Amino acid sequence: MFATETEFIRWLQRQAPGRAPGLRLGIGDDAALVEIRRGYELILTTDLSIEGVHFLRHLHPPRAVGHRALARSLSDVAAMGGTPRYALISLAISARTSRAWLQEFYAGVFALAQRFAVTVVGGDTAVVPGSMLIDVTVAGEVERGKAIRRSGARPGDQIFVSGRLGLSALGLRWIQTKASAARRGKGALGPALARGKMRDPIRVHFYPEPRCALGRFLCEKNLASSLIDLSDGLSTDLTRLCEASNVGARIWAERIPVPDIPAGSKPGSLRAMDLALNGGEDYELLFSVPSRKAPQIAGKFNDVPLHCIGEICRSKEILLVLTNGKQAPLSPAGYDHFAKVSSTSRGQRAKSR
Amino acid sequence: MFATETEFIRWLQRQAPGRAPGLRLGIGDDAALVEIRRGYELILTTDLSIEGVHFLRHLHPPRAVGHRALARSLSDVAAMGGTPRYALISLAISARTSRAWLQEFYAGVFALAQRFAVTVVGGDTAVVPGSMLIDVTVAGEVERGKAIRRSGARPGDQIFVSGRLGLSALGLRWIQTKASAARRGKGALGPALARGKMRDPIRVHFYPEPRCALGRFLCEKNLASSLIDLSDGLSTDLTRLCEASNVGARIWAERIPVPDIPAGSKPGSLRAMDLALNGGEDYELLFSVPSRKAPQIAGKFNDVPLHCIGEICRSKEILLVLTNGKQAPLSPAGYDHFAKVSSTSRGQRAKSR
Repeated sequence: MFATETEFIRWLQRQAPGRAPGLRLGIGDDAALVEIRRGYELILTTDLSIEGVHFLRHLHPPRAVGHRALARSLSDVAAMGGTPRYALISLAISARTSRAWLQEFYAGVFALAQRFAVTVVGGDTAVVPGSMLIDVTVAGEVERGKAIRRSGARPGDQIFVSGRLGLSALGLRWIQTKASAARRGKGALGPALARGKMRDPIRVHFYPEPRCALGRFLCEKNLASSLIDLSDGLSTDLTRLCEASNVGARIWAERIPVPDIPAGSKPGSLRAMDLALNGGEDYELLFSVPSRKAPQIAGKFNDVPLHCIGEICRSKEILLVLTNGKQAPLSPAGYDHFAKVSSTSRGQRAKSR
Repeated sequence: MFATETEFIRWLQRQAPGRAPGLRLGIGDDAALVEIRRGYELILTTDLSIEGVHFLRHLHPPRAVGHRALARSLSDVAAMGGTPRYALISLAISARTSRAWLQEFYAGVFALAQRFAVTVVGGDTAVVPGSMLIDVTVAGEVERGKAIRRSGARPGDQIFVSGRLGLSALGLRWIQTKASAARRGKGALGPALARGKMRDPIRVHFYPEPRCALGRFLCEKNLASSLIDLSDGLSTDLTRLCEASNVGARIWAERIPVPDIPAGSKPGSLRAMDLALNGGEDYELLFSVPSRKAPQIAGKFNDVPLHCIGEICRSKEILLVLTNGKQAPLSPAGYDHFAKVSSTSRGQRAKSR
């Protein structure tokens, strides 16, 4: 792989794109030095990506592993309404990791970083006996006092989501089904994956798009009273937002943008609503808007659809209004690292998280 | 351990000490929000601590694991001449980790953080199948343009180190020897460890003291031309400083503050000079001072001894002047995650890194 740490760091410095305006000192010293603009607060966030938990070595291309690891943290900055600026990449790799894998991994990191004007300024690297682990820290900026927190939702606010939910989980399930069929000799896992009706779910799973521009728009226009990104599933993240705001919510099943599951491509017992509610890894934004401002939210932001799916309520319950008009309590059934019980919906969940 | 992530985060919020002045939003939202003072640059650094590499579950008390994980990053901020302000703790724990272990781990983190006026503002946590891993990111501040880099050493500068080198490696070897004797029924590993002549090395190994005040002093008084912390061993870190500065160095063996190895307590074939040169995990500071400023460096800073061990040279070699007056090239033989060859000195190194 690399003979010494110095050789690795020099290699990494060559991979990294050019310098950003606020960067004073990047990869290679004891620490990085950057500047934060006057009148701005610093946003700090960090996210683990673990082999066997967040990605699988045999299913996820290294470029996607790098993209996804950074996307998780960029999405957290989007969820504050801020602008990501700098990233630190900590990487625990196994001794059998090839240079080609690392090259592709960093290509995924740097391509996404460059597109969001984020500079990789440092990190740490270790060779470990077990499975791989990546920890990405992102530092961002937001105008002083303007960050949008989880805790600002008020009764009567309208609840919006961006994009289409459950696509990432659908893509993963599809890849897993194809891979296991390929192992049983019932079909090849190849370029066909990237074509056809499953192209969107697979792309969203491998290369999720953090919604930084939307977050910044909501912040600059002062439209959202609360904001969170959908990393663990709508049911779980809506619960978090409501708990932080000390409110409840009512959402309508028919308004939730569920994924299209093409006929004949249904892997296992997938249900579109289950994927949308509990699938996770969507990295779309969930936000509340005071009702007088709700008309300012258009049906689309850039090319991303925005859907009003419900409203914030004073009562602490979170209710799902079914298509037959009945209401059912919505429990957080998205991914939880600590939860040990395996409910039906959790049992159906993808294995990569 | 904990039933849900929410329960864990609430528990963690209760463990965390009070709020710092620049803190706008701490643990519990998508990201943390902090303020960096006007006229200051932001320092960013991150360090991995991995079970089986940086610590051993059966040897390192959880409080020491927490202390050491944070100390690594604080030391990096010290090595820029800056002041650490905020920390993010990413924690990949195995399912068998007990709440008591976590309690002690965070007690170690928070005690050190509080003593250095550092606020833990966030992190990420995951439960993993394999061994534990901690990644600590620290954000610090330094007056604009005043940070001390590795790259500023010039020929003729005097080379200084703080403290006594090799103590941490000596402490670890002692603990390992006692533990293996205890396993063979030849003595108990107990309170005796913390007494007697090995008390200092053991304390330094478990609870290293980042030299932030010294780094800040060198920065504020504009005394050091270059600065690095001794995390991987003098031979390796001096090589890094010289390479970054494009210079060489000559150090005198008799001036190096080697550890005292008490007679009769010598575990294995320990040599004091080998520990001082290649032991690593000292977290002392190594810095160069222009010769006209060298008289301003006293023999002690606070209670920490400062030793002048050599000088920077134009020639790129790094030479060790032996007590018999002969010179020998000094190769980096400290810890390197990528190096695969096992030299004699590496073969003797402690297994915990």
